[in-house]
Amino acid sequence: MKQLVERIREEGENAGGGIVKVDGFLNHQVDTALTQLMGERFVEMFLTKGVHDITKVITAEVSGIPSALITAQLLDVPMIYARKHRSAVMTDDYFAAEAKSRTKGEDVMLMISKKYLSVLDRVLIIDDFLATGSTISALCQAVAESGAIVGGIGCVIEKPSEGGREKLEPLGIPIATLAQVVFDGEELEVGPGR
Amino acid sequence: MKQLVERIREEGENAGGGIVKVDGFLNHQVDTALTQLMGERFVEMFLTKGVHDITKVITAEVSGIPSALITAQLLDVPMIYARKHRSAVMTDDYFAAEAKSRTKGEDVMLMISKKYLSVLDRVLIIDDFLATGSTISALCQAVAESGAIVGGIGCVIEKPSEGGREKLEPLGIPIATLAQVVFDGEELEVGPGR
Repeated sequence: MKQLVERIREEGENAGGGIVKVDGFLNHQVDTALTQLMGERFVEMFLTKGVHDITKVITAEVSGIPSALITAQLLDVPMIYARKHRSAVMTDDYFAAEAKSRTKGEDVMLMISKKYLSVLDRVLIIDDFLATGSTISALCQAVAESGAIVGGIGCVIEKPSEGGREKLEPLGIPIATLAQVVFDGEELEVGPGR
Repeated sequence: MKQLVERIREEGENAGGGIVKVDGFLNHQVDTALTQLMGERFVEMFLTKGVHDITKVITAEVSGIPSALITAQLLDVPMIYARKHRSAVMTDDYFAAEAKSRTKGEDVMLMISKKYLSVLDRVLIIDDFLATGSTISALCQAVAESGAIVGGIGCVIEKPSEGGREKLEPLGIPIATLAQVVFDGEELEVGPGR
């Protein structure tokens, strides 16, 4: 996705430790027009990949919410964000799976209420990054527990050096990413997604 | 807002301790069509209240993000979500203020990068609930630190019994809410916002 690739080239920072910082438009300040284009591009890519009849879009709080919301809106389905932090309101039973988070430095439990997923659902999983695939993998597990089908996986930025795609490919689920980032020493090499 | 009031009447649960649970359409599973209508209603109400020339919409992660994003998109401005959890990527300087969270049972620091707010900004603060006003108040403080102006405050659901509006009114900032919920014993009384 050209507009995203250009934006990462202009503003993306190598924050060290394999982390790309894109706080200016993706995960602190959010560019709403770019998010709309990202949603449109996901829908287009999934159509090309033969993904259809999606009933829900799932993401993990926090950074995946904007792109998941717009994608869900374009598909006219609800969006669910898996919870990472248990609060006093969370009195339901949950489908849950553990993911490793590098940016937070700890493992987190991703929880989706059993009320909102069933064998009748066919979901898209959308997140901001595809790195090791740990978050996406945990979301796939939580969805599988419900008996729902994961129809497709979409991530805004892929870091191919971390092997997330290879980890997820055995699941046989179409994967769409909008841009790829490779670290070349201090520099970021940014290219189109796939 | 009629559609929201009806939805809370149908699905809202009294989770005890003054907490209204609206996980089915607002803060776990998100109804994207309703969120669009909420954004449109905020824009309309702020227009009526004389709020104009907004440059950014601010919320606090997590539950305020969907309605803040759609409102920002309608106004064609960026949306910023204040961070509550420091991660490895958060290497900037931050405007920060502390808020009490009842649902999480602990105080949280709300952080907005100094890169994205300045004296030139005129912001809308959007969140899911107006209860005691603690989160909104902290966001107002963080924005004030930047020299930016808070042009308006919008919350999806107001719980008038908790006095948030009275706490915020001395700031002289227009406040718009889309629905009000009052606890009547075990029952919820739901009415239009103001």
